[in-house]
Amino acid sequence: MSFELTKELIKQVTSLIQQKNDVAILAILEDEHYADIAELLDELNFDNSTYIIKLLDSDKTSDVLMELDEDIREKILKNLSAKEIAEELEELDTDDAADMIAELPEERQESVISHIEDEEHVKDIVELLTYDENSAGGLMAKELVKVNENWNVTQCVREMRTQAENVTRVHSIYVVDNDDKLKGRLSLKDLLVTSTKTHISEVYIPKVDAVNVNDKAEDVALIMQKYDLEAIPVVDDENHLLGRITIDDIVDVIKEEAEKDYQLAAGITEDVEADDTILEHTRARLPWLFLGLIGGVGAAAIMGGFEEMIEKHAILFFFTPLIAAMAGNVGVQSSAIIVQGLANNDLKGSISNRLLKEFSLSIVNGLILSILLFVFTWFLYDNIKTSSAISISLLAVIIMAGFIGTFIPLFLDKRGIDPAIATGPFITTSNDIFGILIYFMIAKMIIGI
Amino acid sequence: MSFELTKELIKQVTSLIQQKNDVAILAILEDEHYADIAELLDELNFDNSTYIIKLLDSDKTSDVLMELDEDIREKILKNLSAKEIAEELEELDTDDAADMIAELPEERQESVISHIEDEEHVKDIVELLTYDENSAGGLMAKELVKVNENWNVTQCVREMRTQAENVTRVHSIYVVDNDDKLKGRLSLKDLLVTSTKTHISEVYIPKVDAVNVNDKAEDVALIMQKYDLEAIPVVDDENHLLGRITIDDIVDVIKEEAEKDYQLAAGITEDVEADDTILEHTRARLPWLFLGLIGGVGAAAIMGGFEEMIEKHAILFFFTPLIAAMAGNVGVQSSAIIVQGLANNDLKGSISNRLLKEFSLSIVNGLILSILLFVFTWFLYDNIKTSSAISISLLAVIIMAGFIGTFIPLFLDKRGIDPAIATGPFITTSNDIFGILIYFMIAKMIIGI
Repeated sequence: MSFELTKELIKQVTSLIQQKNDVAILAILEDEHYADIAELLDELNFDNSTYIIKLLDSDKTSDVLMELDEDIREKILKNLSAKEIAEELEELDTDDAADMIAELPEERQESVISHIEDEEHVKDIVELLTYDENSAGGLMAKELVKVNENWNVTQCVREMRTQAENVTRVHSIYVVDNDDKLKGRLSLKDLLVTSTKTHISEVYIPKVDAVNVNDKAEDVALIMQKYDLEAIPVVDDENHLLGRITIDDIVDVIKEEAEKDYQLAAGITEDVEADDTILEHTRARLPWLFLGLIGGVGAAAIMGGFEEMIEKHAILFFFTPLIAAMAGNVGVQSSAIIVQGLANNDLKGSISNRLLKEFSLSIVNGLILSILLFVFTWFLYDNIKTSSAISISLLAVIIMAGFIGTFIPLFLDKRGIDPAIATGPFITTSNDIFGILIYFMIAKMIIGI
Repeated sequence: MSFELTKELIKQVTSLIQQKNDVAILAILEDEHYADIAELLDELNFDNSTYIIKLLDSDKTSDVLMELDEDIREKILKNLSAKEIAEELEELDTDDAADMIAELPEERQESVISHIEDEEHVKDIVELLTYDENSAGGLMAKELVKVNENWNVTQCVREMRTQAENVTRVHSIYVVDNDDKLKGRLSLKDLLVTSTKTHISEVYIPKVDAVNVNDKAEDVALIMQKYDLEAIPVVDDENHLLGRITIDDIVDVIKEEAEKDYQLAAGITEDVEADDTILEHTRARLPWLFLGLIGGVGAAAIMGGFEEMIEKHAILFFFTPLIAAMAGNVGVQSSAIIVQGLANNDLKGSISNRLLKEFSLSIVNGLILSILLFVFTWFLYDNIKTSSAISISLLAVIIMAGFIGTFIPLFLDKRGIDPAIATGPFITTSNDIFGILIYFMIAKMIIGI
């Protein structure tokens, strides 16, 4: 925890690069963690980052590259030769190597792969590239420790020592039959506390959770969380052991899912970070704002249609922002609950039950807020008809907004569309328009013209 | 992955409980994973869940209890005697045991603790209860494997076999000196591939990441993610080894943080799930809706102040929902970016730089949208003054909303307040009011009365 990225450090490294003082740079960076070096590189200009990547050993820089922001990595890789990239890839686990290759322009991919010397590694990477990146196959690594059920413990430990050299973290030892089909597992702990003379078939645990290579990444995340797993083997339809997914990859999936849902709810379409360029931010934000603009123009058109009421009942027009805001807020609340429930896979019961519940909730919240608003506006304007119109409309609008906020994400989910897009500006805008329409229709019924 | 919670299973188990057919129930549930049994219990009524908890072995039910929804667990624990709860606690790791005790009413805690037989376990739990639940101490477990630097590997393996019995997953073996101060670590893999004659001091890795017992849970999560750790030791100020935090606890922290931020952004104050009661939902949602109501009344009051304009310039009033919606959307976008940047600890640069960037972004987005709106309203109403008033106001409002949305979360964060409360209804409501005020002020300046 000793590392801290200070302005002094950035300055010092920058000036050492200018002096081409490689010895001093190596002395500073050699013992630092790759994640810390990546943080430093994010702050340097692009030429200086490339300089450091070329200077350090590829067993370290490969990990540094994986930690960098995607756009910075892309730029650095552009400046490395196919052979240099291949050297980095040799050091990476197959899953990271496949991810890095997938980011390269297609015409470079083949040339880079042809420079990797370890044929086994190439075969594994090429296999991984065939899977969808949002599937279990896209997450898994080929590195794992497996033993044959027919071995004895001595053979097993000998084999494992060789295999374990390539595996960063050994969670479980997978037991397979002669056909490479997954039979069970063995924990390292078990192996440590078992006498070396025991036969594998006597000690392995035949019950082992596994996921199919085509399972969705989110589903794998849910399973690993539910069963508190730190690693899970991946099999094909015939139960052949293909690879292994570890919890650190799942942490990334969980974070990305949560951030994506959060950004969608806030009206941001693309994955942007605070430090991205203004152009990237504009691209991510403008579409939703444009939707809001259309909605606002729609609302104005609706209000224009009720213009004849404005002379006698100006007050009604003063309360349109309130109606629109409440419709938006209720819609966002309802949709957020549904989206989260769907993401955690803990929505039970039918759509109609769900709508009925939201309906009851809207009645409770709506009645409380409408009565408050009635008392308040009556006191202020002393006109029972106006107050009734405003507060009854509010109740109706809250019920409608809850209904839309509940129904739309459930509907999208049934259709296989990500329900998270239904939160935020989409639901706010449609509820604004419907809310104002209902409001004026009810007001007109109660007040007359 | 074979378990599926079907209506048939729920029905079957319910009827077996009525028949008190314990043998059949055990036959069904014995081999199921505790997470699956917990899912089943969430669906049963409370008497039936309690029945099953009392029926199954406490080595399984303790894990089932930890997996249950907090409110269901609370109800079941109420129905168990202090001695029965103590039996469950004996089976749990110290961190889970401490969490479960902390949920009990204070008057029961002591009596439950007095029934735990294992004195070492009691001592550990009582220690853990002293830490803040959102600190490293509140997350850590006392179970870990540690060896003395002065041992040789044979001694070490012998000791470890005893210790490992109590530790669910061994990630690292921690190396301490005679004072129990953390010196380094040893991986299980290293131990497997090292000859048994080697001395510990020759093989251990002296560099080990550790967190202080008082560090905040979120900071521990950031460190473990950054350095891709699956477990981290926890030390006190004098570097004494106190416990260990594992990645599965961190996954929970990350999920809870993300869900809390998401719910706050959606205007939900308390942690509720789709299946909570209507009362719980009302409590979580009503405060924000009430805030929206106040905001709406404020907006109405502001518009009332400009009533003299309504006769000649009704159109201005038609566009208040648009202005309010855009102010809200821009504010939520800006604040979401800041809140996410703060949560990921990747906001660099000063507040003024941040505001300057948001300002530039607002100008870009604002100009595009204002020009669109100008063209549109000019075409529709053919009144250049009205169109100018509306579109210039929109630009001003977007700039203001971006400014408020950026500043407020940064300000709250500096003050040590969770910036996430600044997203959602809070920012929407204040931006609605400010937006409408600015809108009418600018309009009045441009149009006159």
